[in-house]
Amino acid sequence: MKLINLFDYEQAAQSKMRASFFGYYAGGAGDEITLRENRTVFDSIKLRPRVLIDVSHRTLETTILGHPTALPVVIAPMALAKLAHRKGEVAIATAAKKAGIIHCLSTLSSTSLETVASVGAANWFQLYIYKERGITTRLIERAAAAGYKALVLTVDTAVVGVRENLLRTGFRPPRGVKAENFTEFYGAKAALRLPAQFSPIDFDSSLTWDDLKWLIANSSLPVLVKGVLRGDDAKRAIDCGVAGIIVSNHGGRQLDTAVAGIKALPEVVAAVGAQTEVLVDGGIRRGTDIVKALALGARAVLVGRPVLWGLAVSAQKGVEQIFDVLKRELDIAMALCGCSSVGEIGPDLITE
Amino acid sequence: MKLINLFDYEQAAQSKMRASFFGYYAGGAGDEITLRENRTVFDSIKLRPRVLIDVSHRTLETTILGHPTALPVVIAPMALAKLAHRKGEVAIATAAKKAGIIHCLSTLSSTSLETVASVGAANWFQLYIYKERGITTRLIERAAAAGYKALVLTVDTAVVGVRENLLRTGFRPPRGVKAENFTEFYGAKAALRLPAQFSPIDFDSSLTWDDLKWLIANSSLPVLVKGVLRGDDAKRAIDCGVAGIIVSNHGGRQLDTAVAGIKALPEVVAAVGAQTEVLVDGGIRRGTDIVKALALGARAVLVGRPVLWGLAVSAQKGVEQIFDVLKRELDIAMALCGCSSVGEIGPDLITE
Amino acid sequence: MKLINLFDYEQAAQSKMRASFFGYYAGGAGDEITLRENRTVFDSIKLRPRVLIDVSHRTLETTILGHPTALPVVIAPMALAKLAHRKGEVAIATAAKKAGIIHCLSTLSSTSLETVASVGAANWFQLYIYKERGITTRLIERAAAAGYKALVLTVDTAVVGVRENLLRTGFRPPRGVKAENFTEFYGAKAALRLPAQFSPIDFDSSLTWDDLKWLIANSSLPVLVKGVLRGDDAKRAIDCGVAGIIVSNHGGRQLDTAVAGIKALPEVVAAVGAQTEVLVDGGIRRGTDIVKALALGARAVLVGRPVLWGLAVSAQKGVEQIFDVLKRELDIAMALCGCSSVGEIGPDLITE
Amino acid sequence: MKLINLFDYEQAAQSKMRASFFGYYAGGAGDEITLRENRTVFDSIKLRPRVLIDVSHRTLETTILGHPTALPVVIAPMALAKLAHRKGEVAIATAAKKAGIIHCLSTLSSTSLETVASVGAANWFQLYIYKERGITTRLIERAAAAGYKALVLTVDTAVVGVRENLLRTGFRPPRGVKAENFTEFYGAKAALRLPAQFSPIDFDSSLTWDDLKWLIANSSLPVLVKGVLRGDDAKRAIDCGVAGIIVSNHGGRQLDTAVAGIKALPEVVAAVGAQTEVLVDGGIRRGTDIVKALALGARAVLVGRPVLWGLAVSAQKGVEQIFDVLKRELDIAMALCGCSSVGEIGPDLITE
Repeated sequence: MKLINLFDYEQAAQSKMRASFFGYYAGGAGDEITLRENRTVFDSIKLRPRVLIDVSHRTLETTILGHPTALPVVIAPMALAKLAHRKGEVAIATAAKKAGIIHCLSTLSSTSLETVASVGAANWFQLYIYKERGITTRLIERAAAAGYKALVLTVDTAVVGVRENLLRTGFRPPRGVKAENFTEFYGAKAALRLPAQFSPIDFDSSLTWDDLKWLIANSSLPVLVKGVLRGDDAKRAIDCGVAGIIVSNHGGRQLDTAVAGIKALPEVVAAVGAQTEVLVDGGIRRGTDIVKALALGARAVLVGRPVLWGLAVSAQKGVEQIFDVLKRELDIAMALCGCSSVGEIGPDLITE
Repeated sequence: MKLINLFDYEQAAQSKMRASFFGYYAGGAGDEITLRENRTVFDSIKLRPRVLIDVSHRTLETTILGHPTALPVVIAPMALAKLAHRKGEVAIATAAKKAGIIHCLSTLSSTSLETVASVGAANWFQLYIYKERGITTRLIERAAAAGYKALVLTVDTAVVGVRENLLRTGFRPPRGVKAENFTEFYGAKAALRLPAQFSPIDFDSSLTWDDLKWLIANSSLPVLVKGVLRGDDAKRAIDCGVAGIIVSNHGGRQLDTAVAGIKALPEVVAAVGAQTEVLVDGGIRRGTDIVKALALGARAVLVGRPVLWGLAVSAQKGVEQIFDVLKRELDIAMALCGCSSVGEIGPDLITE
Repeated sequence: MKLINLFDYEQAAQSKMRASFFGYYAGGAGDEITLRENRTVFDSIKLRPRVLIDVSHRTLETTILGHPTALPVVIAPMALAKLAHRKGEVAIATAAKKAGIIHCLSTLSSTSLETVASVGAANWFQLYIYKERGITTRLIERAAAAGYKALVLTVDTAVVGVRENLLRTGFRPPRGVKAENFTEFYGAKAALRLPAQFSPIDFDSSLTWDDLKWLIANSSLPVLVKGVLRGDDAKRAIDCGVAGIIVSNHGGRQLDTAVAGIKALPEVVAAVGAQTEVLVDGGIRRGTDIVKALALGARAVLVGRPVLWGLAVSAQKGVEQIFDVLKRELDIAMALCGCSSVGEIGPDLITE
Repeated sequence: MKLINLFDYEQAAQSKMRASFFGYYAGGAGDEITLRENRTVFDSIKLRPRVLIDVSHRTLETTILGHPTALPVVIAPMALAKLAHRKGEVAIATAAKKAGIIHCLSTLSSTSLETVASVGAANWFQLYIYKERGITTRLIERAAAAGYKALVLTVDTAVVGVRENLLRTGFRPPRGVKAENFTEFYGAKAALRLPAQFSPIDFDSSLTWDDLKWLIANSSLPVLVKGVLRGDDAKRAIDCGVAGIIVSNHGGRQLDTAVAGIKALPEVVAAVGAQTEVLVDGGIRRGTDIVKALALGARAVLVGRPVLWGLAVSAQKGVEQIFDVLKRELDIAMALCGCSSVGEIGPDLITE
């Protein structure tokens, strides 16, 4: 089978991976209504292409929080990449570096953040604030020391959403795949607690905007919040001093029937104003999806699962191919829309 | 098969129950358009979760008509629970008591209201006004004497809706399953007339608002009306002195293509004002459904068929599991929406 | 199989009838989009039932153009009923008489209008204006002489719509089934030309409103027009002096993708005002469909194909059963909507 | 199988053609969302037919840019007709001539424009502006010399859309099927490069409105632009001096999720005003589709793939049958809408 688009990679990954591992990545919360909605909303948005504009010199380059990127795509944080391939996050980061893309490492990575950093990609570090603040503080320090460029605080996990497929299959990561960033705190055994509880340590459901302020105050790195789906929350995050907003429903894995990110995006963009960079994720599989997100005000998008499908298919090379596909598709979509650069993508390109 | 959500219990019950008994509960009137709509409307409503709110101390407790309840869920009245399991209404009431939930017993219960009351749960008693007013008066007295806390008058049954599946299967309850509350009036044999006519005695299709006033005047217990789908009717019920309104289309079993309760809810809430408690039922299967109902103004919801599925699967224990599932799901949904208590669930959580 | 609703009768008829005959009745024009839309629109309209209204004394009786009818249902004109059963139109008319329903005979009946009239039902006569006006004049005279109560001029057949299934099956009526009203003009052989051309004689596609005036002037009987789908056309018909309007897309057999009658109804009702009686057909299969049509302003509905299904299943008795089903369903639907008579069915019962 | 409508011809062609050839024509870009939308939008538009208008003298004739045509249909430009049948474009042009229809020849025809012209049909010539302007200039000269009546500049191909099915099947035209108009420039071998790159020569993605002006200035023939989907672009084209606009998404083969032509049509018509003729293509398969396009302001429609299906089925005769079907369907649709001529088709015929 020729691997032409990201759906092909998903199918190929499914045939290569153990079913429960594939399901761990592919599944969503509850009835997976939000998971599906994330895709169908993109398909329902229609484009109004412009013609007869010189698009012979196209660039997909842009900056995100001032960091240059080869295309307006960031790798979304995803736990335990070694479930897809034993080379895990190192393969992803290496591919990201080669592609000139920002890589946002998950706190729950199966490779330590320091090892990932040694690859030399432009990395962000995603984290949670844990009940034991000391763990958070330590992770911040380690991320800064390792050269990460920004922190991404996930805020949509007051509790952990229920991915029922995990309960059905009794998913457990295999020996050797564990949340490596936590071995420092709990040892290898503790980190293995993850699959049962879906988290190596207890999330803190008492978090408030004050904790966000605390994080920003205690971090030398800029902080983005990920998991915002409302204009009022986004505005509040700005008031706390965040560097950027990531509109997200956690890939449909937290609150089922939560609104799709691309649906919530316009409200968030309107609330925060043009100064703040807003990113969005959830269901982005096509170059045209990226055009739509940018047309609705996003600075860039995050892409998650497809990166893992590429990883599963051919390790680093597979991940590079994912970026190649997205790059080629975005390039063509922009050309056909009459846009030479991402800055020219505007709301007039969109209709229902 | 692991029983994780209420749909799992439905499936498990179907495999355990005689087909015609399962069909008696599962079916709806006519083409079952309303039956399906009751579900699809919930799925189409999207949530706008709030983040970074301290939800570490959550409670699902509330009051309904002043009665405390562990969660905003009432067991809907359903006929002949012994069709699901020989322990019938006693098992349900016992589970309700254990879970701290209000149990609304059906007039057409297969256990006498006195026997059910002896369990000691917080019970409501659902009734109809019959042509022979004496029967109604007697039922009111018995319910009050047995310690029931409220009466629920079903008002959407001027005539009985046609569940065509019953006609197809020629459903008849087995020997020993009968409307026990009516043996006093008709003896065991009369109570067996039920399956043929879908009611042990003739409903009175001449009922008017005056009869509601008569009931209220003749009852020491507060009275709710169940089966209202319009704001004007709800207002009129308030003017008659009801203690609460239950927005309901009778689980899709009466008038096919009747509007879904959750669709009618906002109009009813607007009509009656904040003083009156409004409940809603029809298609509630997920914790997020409860959030949506409360966001649209309901004080609580009624859950019917799933209780019977739990009963069929493991008697009292199965019913308890149903409440456990709903409780866990509602708890998670509230946490993810940023709500520590049901009072914090508001209309801003909802979008299309 | 128990025959409970009209869909059951359709299925039973299909299993009894020769496929090409069933297809002749069941099919629609083109892609059958309008045929399907006629049904789906009804299903999508939702009802807002009223409660606690005395509906113990219900009547479905009404008048149409002053003629009393047992329920607001008229039998729609349909060609060649003998394809369904050899007793054909006589069985239908006899059942109509027994049920107290108006029977609109098709010009293309397989029994002569005089024979049908001899049954003694309340009959209307449907006709076209043909190129040879003499034929039309003669049919009018015959209908009046035979005691028909009204003429129904079908106006949506400037040309004949293409029912592709007929072309595929090469449908031809069997020996002995012919348009009997035309043997007077063409003899038995000419009347047999029908299947090839879908009409025994050429329709006149030059018809205008003046021809309608001519018909009205030359008829002692009141004239209704059938096939109007626009308010302006309905208004114009009124100005010509028609006694009533039948909103219809010819059962989806003429112009595919034409708007559904029930969708066009409100516009027509608004255009003609309360004085004129408006009827509607297309897709009416349930008692609730009748309620919806009346709520949107129809005086009555026409029901077509189901009558033929009943005829195919058990001749006259089958037709009577169709009316029994509709009567029972309408009665229940009205009771559950809080309506004791058809005059109480109003627009407030409807929502989307 | 009887070939009654255009879908029948598609099915018949599929069974006759090599799968990869059929796929070359039938496929669309990306997920083929626009390809499907092109059809579903037409099906969702509903007609409001007028009755009792004299339609006995109907004509489908009209003019397009002053050229008379037997019906408001133009043959859309399509590459390499010999893939469907070895008689290719000559068969199409001959059928067009016989039917009195304008034939728009593709630049990428598998027969030279001069050979096609020798048939004597009313031809338009579709072209691109290539990086080597000399090629374009030469094609213009040749088209004018060969008697073509207009040029159609395709403007929606800044780059070539990805038809993934071609990549999957590794489609290559067979020996002898090549872009004959380019043998002059590149020889037979160069013209064979087409299948790999989807174009015999590189498109110029630097084209702007100035190039359109250049083309108009350098052409003795009127110029239409094809591929406009926005009112502002259409207005700009008018300002450049085009003779007409063709609203098109390139049959869903360029930008997937681009808006359907019929959806964009009203905006374009409103932008350019009544003076300019606007054509539309994409998904037209039924006579009613043509009525809808004209009702929304189109002067005519272009029909593409069905012409190839006719060609594949029976060469010239098959193409003629396609026009016969469209002509018969349009004639019936107009009659049933109360329109004697295309000029009488107005927006009042349309509803949702």
